[in-house]
Amino acid sequence: MSLPPLRPVLYDEATDEVRLLDQRRLPGEERWVALGSARDVAKAIADLVVRGAPAIGVAAGYGLAVEARRGAGPDRLRESARALVRSRPTAVNLAWAVLRVSGTFHLGPAAVLKEAHAIRDEDEAACRRIGELGAPLLPPRATVLTHCNAGALATAGYGTALGIVRAAFQSGNDLRVLAGETRPFLQGARLTAWELKRDGIPVTLISDGMAGWLMKKGEVSCVLVGADRIAKNGDVANKIGTYALAVLSAHHQVPFYVAAPLSTVDLATESGEDIPIEERDGEEVTLFAGQRIAPLGVPARYPAFDVTPAELVTAIVTERGVVRSPLCEGLSSLTAAT
Amino acid sequence: MSLPPLRPVLYDEATDEVRLLDQRRLPGEERWVALGSARDVAKAIADLVVRGAPAIGVAAGYGLAVEARRGAGPDRLRESARALVRSRPTAVNLAWAVLRVSGTFHLGPAAVLKEAHAIRDEDEAACRRIGELGAPLLPPRATVLTHCNAGALATAGYGTALGIVRAAFQSGNDLRVLAGETRPFLQGARLTAWELKRDGIPVTLISDGMAGWLMKKGEVSCVLVGADRIAKNGDVANKIGTYALAVLSAHHQVPFYVAAPLSTVDLATESGEDIPIEERDGEEVTLFAGQRIAPLGVPARYPAFDVTPAELVTAIVTERGVVRSPLCEGLSSLTAAT
Repeated sequence: MSLPPLRPVLYDEATDEVRLLDQRRLPGEERWVALGSARDVAKAIADLVVRGAPAIGVAAGYGLAVEARRGAGPDRLRESARALVRSRPTAVNLAWAVLRVSGTFHLGPAAVLKEAHAIRDEDEAACRRIGELGAPLLPPRATVLTHCNAGALATAGYGTALGIVRAAFQSGNDLRVLAGETRPFLQGARLTAWELKRDGIPVTLISDGMAGWLMKKGEVSCVLVGADRIAKNGDVANKIGTYALAVLSAHHQVPFYVAAPLSTVDLATESGEDIPIEERDGEEVTLFAGQRIAPLGVPARYPAFDVTPAELVTAIVTERGVVRSPLCEGLSSLTAAT
Repeated sequence: MSLPPLRPVLYDEATDEVRLLDQRRLPGEERWVALGSARDVAKAIADLVVRGAPAIGVAAGYGLAVEARRGAGPDRLRESARALVRSRPTAVNLAWAVLRVSGTFHLGPAAVLKEAHAIRDEDEAACRRIGELGAPLLPPRATVLTHCNAGALATAGYGTALGIVRAAFQSGNDLRVLAGETRPFLQGARLTAWELKRDGIPVTLISDGMAGWLMKKGEVSCVLVGADRIAKNGDVANKIGTYALAVLSAHHQVPFYVAAPLSTVDLATESGEDIPIEERDGEEVTLFAGQRIAPLGVPARYPAFDVTPAELVTAIVTERGVVRSPLCEGLSSLTAAT
């Protein structure tokens, strides 16, 4: 039994609404929400109804298409664009998609929607190409440790890190995935486990604190994660916890791979030092699956992302090729080919 | 306002019951359970009503006292001792306490209870001495990262790692604690945060995946954890996630301290390779308080402990002194002084 490909962000041309698979409710419930304004899309992005750098870029593009198709004028479109960019600061795909769609405002609603569709289609195609290019990096019968969700749910479809997993699995690699649960939002436990199980790919859940010990025991072939922004020098911002996995990988000589489309590479950001790291509300840590787990009045930190220095990254897989150390040079030549 | 010292394991001589503060229900509810047999105590240990290496040793001693005082004969006492030792495999304090109390079976019920009381009293005294000896290790205005709960709740009272925190705080160190939440059982979020808040010591909660990034940002002065078993060579078994913190500490040149009474040192175990690591049910990862966080049918790993090699440990603080590298020699000379 083969299910249709998973696409978490859709545009309904009959009603001019953005439809999002509500990622806060997975895996318990598959509920779609329909949004009729850019403001609602921005709020859905901030509230994590949709998350994942490429997916929020796609959603933002469609948010502008909704406005254009419902007759918004230039002022309103520009205000919508600003609201979307402000909704989350770290992932660069958001600003990139908004900038790209904004370039079509003067061409009229049909052109705006066409551009938003193009972003979605290109992202899914990029994921499939990343999958093809990255699959050979995985050894036979690989045990792939991943963090957060860099899957179909984080993109237009197919996924970046999980795109590589899918491509390798489909080409016969008898692999299995260790999904780090990824506190506090539990993207690994809720989303990665769900979409891999849906596709019949073997997945085992671990708590984030187990990763180092399993590496030490020789139970991890490689680490494979996505990215929210890659600086010009190759530093990688990704979900909090990624940096620790990179240090642990280096200590245990386990390859550490990053998979991301070129829309995630931000040449205007020189290094990781310049990437804004979103600090979210500590309540998202003290509440666990809706229940309070810490005593009232105890504060929590929640830096939502961290930055892995380029020297800890074995390779970055993009849709245009695999970049190895020194990442800086490889990224420059790939992007120069644009 | 000063609360009475927190002691999670008590013996009620009026009813001959072991009273345990139910650590599964904290911080939401302070509920005590009363147990009238060694079998019930063994089950409470296995079910994590009481946890922490020294605390389960104290509880096991009292479990035998209940049996002796209620008239159990030698066979039943020996069977109870075996059941208690089997309840959890990694913490050596459990077997150590059972062996010690078993040596008094031939002296009658009063002697058995007296020995069990002695274990409790000595453990709390050891914690207070560990606190005094360890407090000078913390720099002024330290930010101390801890993992799991090595506090009053994990001991007869006062705590090992948190004993050092308490002693330093009481001596005027304007410190604060970062409590790693410690998935899956959330001892950090639920227990460490609760007991530190109770004592007015500043504590901030973090997810386990944040520790490395905060070290990188220079926000951690030292790591301070307890232990479930320390091998002759200085390898330290402790709650899963400890090993990763040790690797991250070494990478960032952050001191990594272990606090434990000598009852945790097991000279019969040559190295960490020989320490049995308990594998608990993966459902404890996929379920939280009855709520499923991963899709049905997705398995989880749950090694409950890991082993930190001696070379990653800056020092071990015991009640008889601070042992620095090479740990093997220091531990030998301390224990030889017995």
